[in-house]
Amino acid sequence: MENRTHTADVAAGETATVAGWVHEIRDLGGIAFLILRDRTGKLQIKFEKDEMDEDLVETGLDVHRESVVTVTGAVEEEPRAPTGLEMVPDSLDVLAGADPELPLDPSGKVDAELPTRLDNRTLDLRKPEVKAIFEIRSEILRSVREYFRSVGSTEINTPKIVATGTEGGTELFPITYFGQEAFMNQSPQLFKQLMVGSGLERVFEIGPIFRAEEHNTPRHLNEATMIDFESAFVDHHEAMDVCEGTLKAAYEGVAENCAEELELLGYDDFAVPEDDFPRLTYEEAIERVNATGELDEQLVWGDDLPTEAEKALGSDVGGHYFITDWPSEIKPFYIQDYDDDPQLSKGFDLMHPRMELVSGGQREHRYDELVAGFEQQGLDPEQFDYYTRMFRYGMPPHAGWAYGVERLVMTMLDLDNIREAVLFPRDRQRLSP
Amino acid sequence: MENRTHTADVAAGETATVAGWVHEIRDLGGIAFLILRDRTGKLQIKFEKDEMDEDLVETGLDVHRESVVTVTGAVEEEPRAPTGLEMVPDSLDVLAGADPELPLDPSGKVDAELPTRLDNRTLDLRKPEVKAIFEIRSEILRSVREYFRSVGSTEINTPKIVATGTEGGTELFPITYFGQEAFMNQSPQLFKQLMVGSGLERVFEIGPIFRAEEHNTPRHLNEATMIDFESAFVDHHEAMDVCEGTLKAAYEGVAENCAEELELLGYDDFAVPEDDFPRLTYEEAIERVNATGELDEQLVWGDDLPTEAEKALGSDVGGHYFITDWPSEIKPFYIQDYDDDPQLSKGFDLMHPRMELVSGGQREHRYDELVAGFEQQGLDPEQFDYYTRMFRYGMPPHAGWAYGVERLVMTMLDLDNIREAVLFPRDRQRLSP
Repeated sequence: MENRTHTADVAAGETATVAGWVHEIRDLGGIAFLILRDRTGKLQIKFEKDEMDEDLVETGLDVHRESVVTVTGAVEEEPRAPTGLEMVPDSLDVLAGADPELPLDPSGKVDAELPTRLDNRTLDLRKPEVKAIFEIRSEILRSVREYFRSVGSTEINTPKIVATGTEGGTELFPITYFGQEAFMNQSPQLFKQLMVGSGLERVFEIGPIFRAEEHNTPRHLNEATMIDFESAFVDHHEAMDVCEGTLKAAYEGVAENCAEELELLGYDDFAVPEDDFPRLTYEEAIERVNATGELDEQLVWGDDLPTEAEKALGSDVGGHYFITDWPSEIKPFYIQDYDDDPQLSKGFDLMHPRMELVSGGQREHRYDELVAGFEQQGLDPEQFDYYTRMFRYGMPPHAGWAYGVERLVMTMLDLDNIREAVLFPRDRQRLSP
Repeated sequence: MENRTHTADVAAGETATVAGWVHEIRDLGGIAFLILRDRTGKLQIKFEKDEMDEDLVETGLDVHRESVVTVTGAVEEEPRAPTGLEMVPDSLDVLAGADPELPLDPSGKVDAELPTRLDNRTLDLRKPEVKAIFEIRSEILRSVREYFRSVGSTEINTPKIVATGTEGGTELFPITYFGQEAFMNQSPQLFKQLMVGSGLERVFEIGPIFRAEEHNTPRHLNEATMIDFESAFVDHHEAMDVCEGTLKAAYEGVAENCAEELELLGYDDFAVPEDDFPRLTYEEAIERVNATGELDEQLVWGDDLPTEAEKALGSDVGGHYFITDWPSEIKPFYIQDYDDDPQLSKGFDLMHPRMELVSGGQREHRYDELVAGFEQQGLDPEQFDYYTRMFRYGMPPHAGWAYGVERLVMTMLDLDNIREAVLFPRDRQRLSP
């Protein structure tokens, strides 16, 4: 098997062995074609019934669609074949037969609803345009990590089983951990902060987070992959610079390395964001939302932005933008407030015109203020002693942010549902596969 | 803060701003030195008491060790300084004061036991030789991913919340998932197999796994980071080639990019494994173990290798090696057996002289044989229908493997305890921080 050639690499005049799935069989009578598909593309295999071994013809043409076969034969030029090449088989082996009835049609000729697709992801990902989403996702992760390294960040892995959650408000999934109560972590927030106070100074993590929120929307998941960044000795505006750089690096990576996938998905106008993202203060943002006249009720200072407001503002701005200087009350306790105006926090969000992508901010690094923040949030600082204690041993000023990979994929590729951006989504209804 | 210069980058004749931790203060009377430490190294700050502003001297010399400060001043050559440079401060700000008493001494002058270190990881990682371990770990992840991409693998993320575990024998942590019983996944095994049957064909994942095993040893964790690889159209020997390539890529990456860290850790003889790793069959392995005479009791065919056997064989072979062709009974149901000898499986392990690193094998891709395997293992195939069903729709022959990042770091750096290779270990006793 190691000697197989990908269909994209076969050349006329050579004998090759290819392996893949039976995409289609077209029987025209005296001549028939088997279209073999592998991850790189397709190849037409020609059966001239009268001129070939009967067993070979029978095996090749009786096989069910989506069976796995390997074929050895001469590759010839054939202008009428979709790739300009076809193979005349010397031998064909069925490595794994497929049932005649499939729950999903990988050729895409029969549409399937999302739940059916998710139940049958193996078959669903045989559709090149579905596979393309996950090749792009993989490239996003690669280019984001490369960018992180270019700005001197160290990759870390923090625990997903924790004794206490990061925030009070968000729901946690409880675990039984050797007889103790524990939880699945909803964010690496506290751990990455502990690491910027260590010798590492600047860290990133890409890993799963778990949120027991009872959402049921096209843009929420109960398990997601989070891109986390945190750095000592930067403020929130410098953290925004890195955030913007990361996002642009993801778009650039995809533009450079996923041309085929973008074409398959029909993006002939895929654009890497070039300009600096506008940074609106929260106050400017609500004024601008109100000015659009899209909302039934005007926003007042202190309101969180409802979905309609995000949409109105997004179409008004027309691209990615930041909202800065949020009311302290809306932001978590670990975000630092302005000393000269404690009602205002140094929290920020990065927005895509469709939705919020990133949440971040300058963090509170002063022990007394941090502990007071826990109490204001209704959390018991004692429970977080492992975290707060380190702030008494020299915790530098720091800032950071996090965004969900799925929302990045979803907004980049304009997908309708976030579940299209994750292989095996987890939501209130879906726990399997 | 954005204008700070790392201590490694300051140059004589310039005025610079540096920021970091107060590593040490040496007061010699008329002259005193503050040693500032950041992630790149250290810098000596000179205080000539009679010639400098009194407030500046007081602030600089009264600050507690491990406080965070920023200093601006002229950098001068000073042959007696450890780096050949020193700074004469114009200004010094204390960004975060540290308590006078620390639970751990980051200068390393006072030894600390591992539990104390793990309770105070923030301080522990200020020791350059501890930080070095995690810089190396980060580089291992980078070079492993780069290698995976060079052999055409797509990065995937599979769910950590699952309805059923991968294997019967290994213990699972139960979760309450919106009123349903669920578990934290002990391995991406089944999901990565589902993906090689999709259009992706060859995939990798680096992510957390969770095992509720009641181990209490220096080489087991209850949460670990796993490197998983799986590929369609390869057999177990080809999967071993990729495994060997991945491991060598990790060593090469570290050798090339972590010279300073290796030096800090005292490895002047860090060697990248060059030769092909020997591939012993299980039968050869037990014969060789028995021949060492190290074991009280001779091994017989069918025995698993106890720790002493691994050690005896490891020191006999003297480097990494594979053990292939294990008895089917010892290996999980999803490993394929040899058709001509069903007692023998196509499972393999990659061994470091100290311990097992990798478990892998050719997988059973035939539906009927797979379902029979579930039953032999005492598992109900119905419960795994989401997985087995896909084997009826054209599942190619495939093979793969997994290894733990922590064991790789531990063996590469010759660490005594696996807990030294993970920032925040999870074991039966340790759930926090």
